[in-house]
Amino acid sequence: MQVEVINTGTELLLGQVTNTHVGFFGERLLEIGLRISRQGTVPDGDDIKDMLAGAIERSRIILVTGGLGPTSDDLTREMTAEFLGLELVEDGGVMAKIASRFRASGNEMRPSNQRQAMVPEGAEVLDNNNGTAPGLYLSTGIGSSRVHIFLLPGPPRELYPIFEEQVLPRIKNVLESEGLGVPVARNYFFMGVGESELAGRVELVMDGIPGDFEIGYCLKAGGVIVRCICSERYVAGLDEAIRGIAPEDLVAEGASAIEDVVVRDLSAAGERVAIAESCTGGLIANRITNVPGASRVFDVGYITYANEAKRRLLGVSEAMINEMGVVSETVAKAMAEGCLESSGSDHAISVTGIAGPTGGSSKKPVGSVWIGLASSGVAARAFYYRFKTDRMHFKDRASTVAIDLLRRRLGGWL
Amino acid sequence: MQVEVINTGTELLLGQVTNTHVGFFGERLLEIGLRISRQGTVPDGDDIKDMLAGAIERSRIILVTGGLGPTSDDLTREMTAEFLGLELVEDGGVMAKIASRFRASGNEMRPSNQRQAMVPEGAEVLDNNNGTAPGLYLSTGIGSSRVHIFLLPGPPRELYPIFEEQVLPRIKNVLESEGLGVPVARNYFFMGVGESELAGRVELVMDGIPGDFEIGYCLKAGGVIVRCICSERYVAGLDEAIRGIAPEDLVAEGASAIEDVVVRDLSAAGERVAIAESCTGGLIANRITNVPGASRVFDVGYITYANEAKRRLLGVSEAMINEMGVVSETVAKAMAEGCLESSGSDHAISVTGIAGPTGGSSKKPVGSVWIGLASSGVAARAFYYRFKTDRMHFKDRASTVAIDLLRRRLGGWL
Repeated sequence: MQVEVINTGTELLLGQVTNTHVGFFGERLLEIGLRISRQGTVPDGDDIKDMLAGAIERSRIILVTGGLGPTSDDLTREMTAEFLGLELVEDGGVMAKIASRFRASGNEMRPSNQRQAMVPEGAEVLDNNNGTAPGLYLSTGIGSSRVHIFLLPGPPRELYPIFEEQVLPRIKNVLESEGLGVPVARNYFFMGVGESELAGRVELVMDGIPGDFEIGYCLKAGGVIVRCICSERYVAGLDEAIRGIAPEDLVAEGASAIEDVVVRDLSAAGERVAIAESCTGGLIANRITNVPGASRVFDVGYITYANEAKRRLLGVSEAMINEMGVVSETVAKAMAEGCLESSGSDHAISVTGIAGPTGGSSKKPVGSVWIGLASSGVAARAFYYRFKTDRMHFKDRASTVAIDLLRRRLGGWL
Repeated sequence: MQVEVINTGTELLLGQVTNTHVGFFGERLLEIGLRISRQGTVPDGDDIKDMLAGAIERSRIILVTGGLGPTSDDLTREMTAEFLGLELVEDGGVMAKIASRFRASGNEMRPSNQRQAMVPEGAEVLDNNNGTAPGLYLSTGIGSSRVHIFLLPGPPRELYPIFEEQVLPRIKNVLESEGLGVPVARNYFFMGVGESELAGRVELVMDGIPGDFEIGYCLKAGGVIVRCICSERYVAGLDEAIRGIAPEDLVAEGASAIEDVVVRDLSAAGERVAIAESCTGGLIANRITNVPGASRVFDVGYITYANEAKRRLLGVSEAMINEMGVVSETVAKAMAEGCLESSGSDHAISVTGIAGPTGGSSKKPVGSVWIGLASSGVAARAFYYRFKTDRMHFKDRASTVAIDLLRRRLGGWL
């Protein structure tokens, strides 16, 4: 079943706003086995009709975003109704909801807001709990088949819940009513194993279990996502097979980020981590504290950019730095040990490296990094990596690997 | 002059990769007064021809991205040649370059790599210094006018330089050869003044200077970007007028981020900043250290998430925390003072607040934050904000305001 996406909005074409709708739809649709076959962006206005005309010929499901607001350049409702030859009629329920919103806020309702209560005749209203513009669902016969058109508000915090709660269930209904079945998609995020190595091992175990699977691989955030689509009844066997491949490398199932996993694992163990960062400059702590509830597992971080700060806060002596070099196994271990001791945490991560673009040498080129890991009662260890990339990606990769080392320690693999 | 963008690539439709090409093109084209009139994404394959057919009818400049690689689903070159009725011929220069790349890397060249040397007859080759697939430029007569088609590689680090260095100059040539003139776009980023207030003041000063200006406003990163497009000869007057509006609120001209500005200003003054973060969890330090050369102005950051860490590292007493509350003016000031003293820096920023989603109370709701600022020889001050948003946006907004406070201090406005 073909799905097509039409994004309306001049701001998307001027580069003021990045189009994240397509990625969101693409991921969520793939989970029920559907793919977007085409996507287009048009400015607010007449072009919407032109793009709808093409889409209706090619596709059975059409998702239109944007242009449902109260201003004069919000024309999606009008253009769609005009194109389909439908009258716009006032919807009493929508009108009442808009009026009550305005009453509650104390603002006066303007005629432009009343336009948002106009819906094409026969359209179903999709409630919007985060804004005034409701979504609209039109199912219309084109030739011998039905085309399903969804008009959806553009702001993500309005769009995403409407899509999850009201659009996806309707699309599933369409699939089921046509006897197509709704498959399940499973994502497995691996780190520390290369894509082709992983693919070989996945294929091997898949041969041994029953079911039809569609398998895809995608590089992401320093690891590989394995995506499997199959019918519901094969999921249990699939999970078991994939989990057995490389338990220590399987970071997460589903959409969890590695920092979510580590905060969850630390919470479960009732343990805490402290962080001593040099070249990552606070990114590791920032990622850990992005997770709600991080305060249960994280007390303190040291950003010891200068050598003097490494000495004062972590007890790394000037002599050691002079002798071994600040980017060295010895210093990374000493930073982790000093961090563990001064913080009183159960685990400590340290990072020392050269983010670039300058500061490298032939012996220690830009991108070199030592990551230290210390846990109470366990001797500190340090691991060397080299990320040949720009400063921002270097920080991202180094922080991801550092968090993954802690995950491996918590899982008993390190 | 109509510009249209065609993005090819199944990964864009599956949600694996976010389309950042459109935003990049949109911004850069706007600087020479052009707008993207339509954009579309198609999977690799036949659909490219269909979309080209529509684009050629509507537009004079067509930018196609992706599908120039060596694999069998990279079909943009073939599809475009087929659509335009052109033969593919081997380009000696491209072939030699690919062969020498493979010699240098020690890998063996496969037949699939030789495909990348095939170019539609009459196409101009746009050198790619960051990958094997060159861009291609075709100028073709359609009816009485010429259509300019650019085929460009998809990876941003290959695409962006080719676009800047080889595509934009050709587009400017087209504009000039048709006597259209190339306007200049200027961006001014303001913080601390609302959009409508700013717009009123901009209009007032613009009335007093000569020239035709197209002015737009865009909310971004806690501030407002004012974008003016005008002919080259009016730029000097424009700059002077805009700079006079609110010098203390004008963060940057052009594309600089606020952290770039602060690192530049600190470097120029030969001064350093230290940072004590609680609820922002390392984000401020991370942003500062994203700027190359940050080590000249930044030695140390403290992420004092727990109260005990605030006491031990910044000297904020438990009694003060108990009496005033950890999210308070007193504690923010004490954190900044403690940070200044222990680091020996010239300036210190501190942040204490409630990022949420939990931890708020009726007196101190989620989103409350006190930001402290101390400079050597100046009494510490603290500023209250409330950001009613989610955890991630809260951290972003709070860190931006904190960096802006330092900018104002360095500029002598605070």
